[in-house]
Amino acid sequence: MENNKIKIGIIGLGTVGTGVFKTLQSFDNIEIVKIAVRNKNKKRNIENLDENLITDNPYEVVNDPSIQIVAELIGGTEPAFDLIKTAISNGKHIVTANKELLAKHGEELFNFAEANNKVILYEAAIAGGIPLIMPIKTILAGNKINKIKAILNGTTNYILTKMDVQNASYEDVLKEAQQLGYAETDPTGDVEGYDAAYKITTLATIAFKKRIKFANVYREGITKIRPEDMKAANEMGYKIKLIASAELDEAGNADVRVHPMLVPKSKTLAHIDYVTNAVTLSGHPVGEVTLSGPGAGEFPTASSVVGDILAIVSEIGKTDYLLPMMRCNHHENATPVNISDTKNKYYLSICSKNSLGVIGRIGQACEANNISLASIVQKEVEGSYADITVITELCREQDMQKFIDTINNDAAITKVNSLIRVQV
Amino acid sequence: MENNKIKIGIIGLGTVGTGVFKTLQSFDNIEIVKIAVRNKNKKRNIENLDENLITDNPYEVVNDPSIQIVAELIGGTEPAFDLIKTAISNGKHIVTANKELLAKHGEELFNFAEANNKVILYEAAIAGGIPLIMPIKTILAGNKINKIKAILNGTTNYILTKMDVQNASYEDVLKEAQQLGYAETDPTGDVEGYDAAYKITTLATIAFKKRIKFANVYREGITKIRPEDMKAANEMGYKIKLIASAELDEAGNADVRVHPMLVPKSKTLAHIDYVTNAVTLSGHPVGEVTLSGPGAGEFPTASSVVGDILAIVSEIGKTDYLLPMMRCNHHENATPVNISDTKNKYYLSICSKNSLGVIGRIGQACEANNISLASIVQKEVEGSYADITVITELCREQDMQKFIDTINNDAAITKVNSLIRVQV
Repeated sequence: MENNKIKIGIIGLGTVGTGVFKTLQSFDNIEIVKIAVRNKNKKRNIENLDENLITDNPYEVVNDPSIQIVAELIGGTEPAFDLIKTAISNGKHIVTANKELLAKHGEELFNFAEANNKVILYEAAIAGGIPLIMPIKTILAGNKINKIKAILNGTTNYILTKMDVQNASYEDVLKEAQQLGYAETDPTGDVEGYDAAYKITTLATIAFKKRIKFANVYREGITKIRPEDMKAANEMGYKIKLIASAELDEAGNADVRVHPMLVPKSKTLAHIDYVTNAVTLSGHPVGEVTLSGPGAGEFPTASSVVGDILAIVSEIGKTDYLLPMMRCNHHENATPVNISDTKNKYYLSICSKNSLGVIGRIGQACEANNISLASIVQKEVEGSYADITVITELCREQDMQKFIDTINNDAAITKVNSLIRVQV
Repeated sequence: MENNKIKIGIIGLGTVGTGVFKTLQSFDNIEIVKIAVRNKNKKRNIENLDENLITDNPYEVVNDPSIQIVAELIGGTEPAFDLIKTAISNGKHIVTANKELLAKHGEELFNFAEANNKVILYEAAIAGGIPLIMPIKTILAGNKINKIKAILNGTTNYILTKMDVQNASYEDVLKEAQQLGYAETDPTGDVEGYDAAYKITTLATIAFKKRIKFANVYREGITKIRPEDMKAANEMGYKIKLIASAELDEAGNADVRVHPMLVPKSKTLAHIDYVTNAVTLSGHPVGEVTLSGPGAGEFPTASSVVGDILAIVSEIGKTDYLLPMMRCNHHENATPVNISDTKNKYYLSICSKNSLGVIGRIGQACEANNISLASIVQKEVEGSYADITVITELCREQDMQKFIDTINNDAAITKVNSLIRVQV
């Protein structure tokens, strides 16, 4: 342990802890020196895990004098609350993914950290892998944010999306989600909106720079939504989503709630489906920005935990005043790939004289140039002309160019009207 | 000028410069000491602008020894390039919104800044107000990003959206966009993809940590897209967008391009309409995140310029090692707003016995409770029952609750099946 690496302790080696452990392996300046687990004998999905790092006493982590940063990844209020306070008392910075703890005891914990000149970072506690808290604190710092609309719970968004797509009942989709592991056996925390309410409490606090109390957050779940409502909403141009919303007026009054809403299809949030999360922040001068991505999971959550760890690491032991993270960090050239060597799917619109065998000749030209067709649709345009729409499978750009040359020199075809690449 | 404020110089007082000037007024620790403009006599949309700050010689800004940060907001390669180099030589940090300059001379400028222990920040140069560059450098720093798909040009996205919505030709929509000021008289820079290509050059460089050269970016504009293609794409489940795309393989080969693409409607980018920009970043461990918002404009761009300025300000003169921006900054309580005092739009599904006058009675109950109806639809369900769907205008929650009590006690109505709030 006698080296210059920053020493990290991890409490909790579940899904998130495992992702954090794996991700930190690629950073030479960081060393994980202790990991607290509940059950030392549990088989873990980690290769070559050094058994000497493992303890079943989390106080061995928070009391280890070599550790500079503690990542608390167990969730729940106790023992997490006492562990974090003890760690701060012992001079450690905290990175946590614990939304419930922050919603219920954030005020005390942040004040305690401040008094001890330590930071608690918690990007992973809200909206998993989505960059949100750090951007609010840094690049959006010039803004007065006064409105948040967010989808912060993947389980309920999955259920609502499935109800919409399959025209199915809440009960049926819940059962399916439980079988797939997207919903827990007791789904109350998700479906009654507690999870989203924890998250919006802390998110609104940091965005508004005013403390929101969890007890004041109005909360309503999704259990009463019917397939008939989904259908009616669709017909009127809406999608039903569980929205965590927060608004701050000029006098400092905060309206913070979690409940289902009809979201106009013109809004990005209406198109955030399945387990994806999204947050729309409104303020001045920025206007409205929407950040979306994976709200949970081993690796997305690890991205945020590790981002927070790296932010603290970049500050520790710094002799120069400029944040190293701001510097340019790209001293090598990439090797360019020429467009003719790329592989793409293509949309083609071909106008042909409606003569016998054109489709067959297109097919032959495809085959001669190693191009597979995904679909081909022929429509009569007027009289003797046909409009042929083609979508290809992935093929090489240079093969496509040869194909077009062939087609454009075919007397039965007047021209290729459009060639547009298709996103895969 | 003898105070502890951080001294800022601004070059360019056009749309963006004006937004930056106004936004910086609310920061007590920052003082704008000099502003260079092209024409000193031009009338500006700024109240009480101190004439003594204004110069028409930009070298007065970059040579002013009191200035610590220069915001370069004029665009173009010259004189911006020389001004920035001179400013760095004179010990100043740079904040710029200049995408063309960075795409063409970024390598030289970043190396020069690094050698002089100064930073060049450029959040505003790519995707306007969207938090993008700072998140990539900070909270996403634990990731290997290897794929970018982005809508980086508002003008072309506006044109494509209008073509789609109105089934109109490129030429007609361009004309309209020019009249509205969304497109320039010579629209080449936008419609041929140069603007997006500048941006993806720098964005891919920072995201991949490998230098991309502008000359290697393949580029194709939107001028050949036909309404017929829009229609065919829609029918097949796609939207046509001008996509700036970049991919890095494991060997360091970079495929970077700007061209129209068919984007599947299941992707968030397919729903980014009009002048909005969006960037989807893919990498490990985060997976896929999409950041969207205003790509241009006075205030959104100012948000990013000011965010960069504040990031540098927070580092200058710091005595403590912890980035002040990471700390908690919310010591006051917000005043909670009770849900019964909020105003909302509502969706109601009401089941009634299909007896005469039910709609009338609903209307009366609305009026009695100060509720205006936006729409009401009655459908017969079976035999003597009718399903009535109501959308209200904004009204108070407590009035809505009284309305529901009235309705639920009406013998002609069996029950209110659903009450869901509507996002406005």
